Amino acid sequence: MAEKITPRATDYSQWYIDIVLNAKLADYAPVKGCMVIRPRGYALWERMQAGLDGLFKATGHVNAYFPLLIPESFFKKEAEHVEGFSPELAMVTHAGGEKLEEPYAIRPTSETIIWSMYKRWIQSYRDLPLLINQWCNVVRWEKRTRLFLRTTEFLWQEGHTAHATSEEAEAETLRMLGVYRTFAEEYMALPVLHGVKTESEKFAGAVKTYCIEAMMQDRKALQAGTSHFLGQNFAKAFDVTFQTKDKTIDHVWATSWGVSTRLIGALIMAHSDDKGLILPPRLAPIEVVIVPIFKNETKDAVLKFARNLRDTLSTAFRVFLDEDDQNTPGWKFAEYEVQGVPLRIELGPRDIEKEQVVAVRRDTGEKVFVPVVEATVRFRALLDDIQSSLYRRALKFREDNTFRAKSYAELGKLLDEPGGFIEAGWCGDTACEAKVKEEYKATIRLLPLEAKDPEGAPCVVCGKTARHIAVFGRAY
Amino acid sequence: MAEKITPRATDYSQWYIDIVLNAKLADYAPVKGCMVIRPRGYALWERMQAGLDGLFKATGHVNAYFPLLIPESFFKKEAEHVEGFSPELAMVTHAGGEKLEEPYAIRPTSETIIWSMYKRWIQSYRDLPLLINQWCNVVRWEKRTRLFLRTTEFLWQEGHTAHATSEEAEAETLRMLGVYRTFAEEYMALPVLHGVKTESEKFAGAVKTYCIEAMMQDRKALQAGTSHFLGQNFAKAFDVTFQTKDKTIDHVWATSWGVSTRLIGALIMAHSDDKGLILPPRLAPIEVVIVPIFKNETKDAVLKFARNLRDTLSTAFRVFLDEDDQNTPGWKFAEYEVQGVPLRIELGPRDIEKEQVVAVRRDTGEKVFVPVVEATVRFRALLDDIQSSLYRRALKFREDNTFRAKSYAELGKLLDEPGGFIEAGWCGDTACEAKVKEEYKATIRLLPLEAKDPEGAPCVVCGKTARHIAVFGRAY
Repeated sequence: MAEKITPRATDYSQWYIDIVLNAKLADYAPVKGCMVIRPRGYALWERMQAGLDGLFKATGHVNAYFPLLIPESFFKKEAEHVEGFSPELAMVTHAGGEKLEEPYAIRPTSETIIWSMYKRWIQSYRDLPLLINQWCNVVRWEKRTRLFLRTTEFLWQEGHTAHATSEEAEAETLRMLGVYRTFAEEYMALPVLHGVKTESEKFAGAVKTYCIEAMMQDRKALQAGTSHFLGQNFAKAFDVTFQTKDKTIDHVWATSWGVSTRLIGALIMAHSDDKGLILPPRLAPIEVVIVPIFKNETKDAVLKFARNLRDTLSTAFRVFLDEDDQNTPGWKFAEYEVQGVPLRIELGPRDIEKEQVVAVRRDTGEKVFVPVVEATVRFRALLDDIQSSLYRRALKFREDNTFRAKSYAELGKLLDEPGGFIEAGWCGDTACEAKVKEEYKATIRLLPLEAKDPEGAPCVVCGKTARHIAVFGRAY
Repeated sequence: MAEKITPRATDYSQWYIDIVLNAKLADYAPVKGCMVIRPRGYALWERMQAGLDGLFKATGHVNAYFPLLIPESFFKKEAEHVEGFSPELAMVTHAGGEKLEEPYAIRPTSETIIWSMYKRWIQSYRDLPLLINQWCNVVRWEKRTRLFLRTTEFLWQEGHTAHATSEEAEAETLRMLGVYRTFAEEYMALPVLHGVKTESEKFAGAVKTYCIEAMMQDRKALQAGTSHFLGQNFAKAFDVTFQTKDKTIDHVWATSWGVSTRLIGALIMAHSDDKGLILPPRLAPIEVVIVPIFKNETKDAVLKFARNLRDTLSTAFRVFLDEDDQNTPGWKFAEYEVQGVPLRIELGPRDIEKEQVVAVRRDTGEKVFVPVVEATVRFRALLDDIQSSLYRRALKFREDNTFRAKSYAELGKLLDEPGGFIEAGWCGDTACEAKVKEEYKATIRLLPLEAKDPEGAPCVVCGKTARHIAVFGRAY
């Protein structure tokens, strides 16, 4: 049963932690900055993995597995990559009771080890494209950590593809950005902006980094996925060349893209309320929970009816019947609200007489009476409506909290109150971007992919002619 | 296309490596003792994971994820455990550019970190049983490694359960041994012996280790899975107690059980032949491959026919149509034999006229003509027959290579020639077991679960009255 959950209005950060711990999604581990993903959190991750993996395979990708440990020297082969990741590496220096000749880093990302293998596997244009994904754990030594959002170790997938041309690699980068957007919007019910990162925010080693960004209920931005066009940077670092159709030799073109267990944090913060977790039906490990209401003398009849209902529903939904007789129905109602089960079914002796059940939506709390013969059809409609309502609600929230700043002072005010996504002209100069970061603790989240024409607007910082309309925000 | 595969009769070890590399299941990594699991090998692992995961969930288990890194001090809490695993640990001593106060070990197995969490989660008998499994990577610093069979890093699952009574924990240990046996026999077509390990061969920290053992084609034994009854050892080491129904306080009872990517090695060595891999249909990523045979003038008609066939078959099988027109059909036949696809379908213009196709079994090479209208039914029957034939063939091989030794000299001779499983009386004394290991390089693989009565037979080593009929063998 739930401990008390701090209301969002009181302390949004504490509310988030209370949800994670009370819904038993994760727990703190006795290892610096690490967490344990508990069975309910992991079941959610399994649903997310299944959805993403299906989308990856439908776009021609296959899975593989590369080593956890990467020789330290590999990082030094790509100058920007080593600069970006060195401060975060965890190093294995001893093994089997001896000091190692060369230390190994635990992978923070796998470009280097994968491109050292691609060198062996790619000789000709006939070997391309190579479309490989990996599901694994990575370690980045973070100073400040938060459950799911930023942990020293996390689970993720990382796609690493190799192509014969720049155009093909850029198309792949955008294709996978599109897959992430589809997943966020259609599975997670999470509207996202998509666009390109500025030079100072891009991945260490990338030519261009594309991203999807979502808005949380505290109006802060959360980067939910990135897709990188790596150009020939890693092919050159690891000397991966191929014979083209025209019998010339060229370096291979690359992409990489990833999303992580951080998405679970995004899901929680986008939809949940002060009672607990709210899960979109498509990702909920349990879509429908049945809570039977009985006394000793009605127990047998009610359970019989409830089991029949469960068996019928099982062919169409992920359903759970809670037969426990130690906890009261009221306790169970609260418990499944904390857990975020989208639809709760209550049924007691009088409902059996009337051949109906009570269905309660988790998102709105709305109660409806549903004749048992219509249960499958009506529940399907209710779940579909919950899925799309969550999306619309989050979209409206984002739209209501997206503003346009015309001056530097206004940008600062809007970031402070109410917060949100602030669109503003930007000249393209890193110095202006740095000033906003320094003075307002905000970053350019992205330059929208469907770029708006600045139409002669000035840069919100320096007043020179803007080259972009950028989206500013404070972020997780 | 295949490089040359060394015949088994020439060099069984080299044959195995040739299969793994030519079928592109795995490759050597630039990290000591590690491998890369290539897409074809990983697809096989995904099928195995899906099968096992289904069996785990059907027996009430849920998945979770615990940290990769374990504080060094945790190992020291269980005396036998630290002694067994210390020599194999890889240690993280530096991270984030600084030396760590306490080094972390990369998990070689997760009993310690998991029981440190169970201490938090278990208070009462109401919290039990706790039936958790984890899919993850582990690292054990091995001196001699072999692709899949023994690698520094490997993928596995590890189940860790907590129970209120010794009886319940022992029953769980045997239940999961049964799950492993079911998986080996029904999915992998791999007959296994099941039994208990001797004291000297058991898991470091276990009270009892149960195992399944399979025979490879070189008559060597391979341990394919283990299930441990841990008693209260880890509960005591991590002080995990609970309130019983009678309001007393007791330490929790534990089990752990695991299988790894080593099973892929077992699968290869049990069934494959000098042409390449042979996969049991239930685990084959591709069950049916269609190879169309055409010339320029017949290409369109043959491909149209082949695509229709593929679409029809796709509803019942994992099917792949190879439309490539750079490689000859003969090249493709050899390639899919290397890859181990259970059923190959050949079809050309004359087959289309006759509305038939040619089906070729990978296990026997047998060809049959199948009318197109009967394809689904006939292929189902063929695949089922391949699955059961592989099992029967492996079972017969094991039975033909299981012997009874009546004297110590005979035990040595049989281990040398022909090899296999040698049953013999054993007094139960560790000294006798050690002598066999020292002089014959063989171990007691297990004491069979359906123990045979030694019927007054002497110990094959010391001649005293035997307490067990043990199964001796040389092992991977």
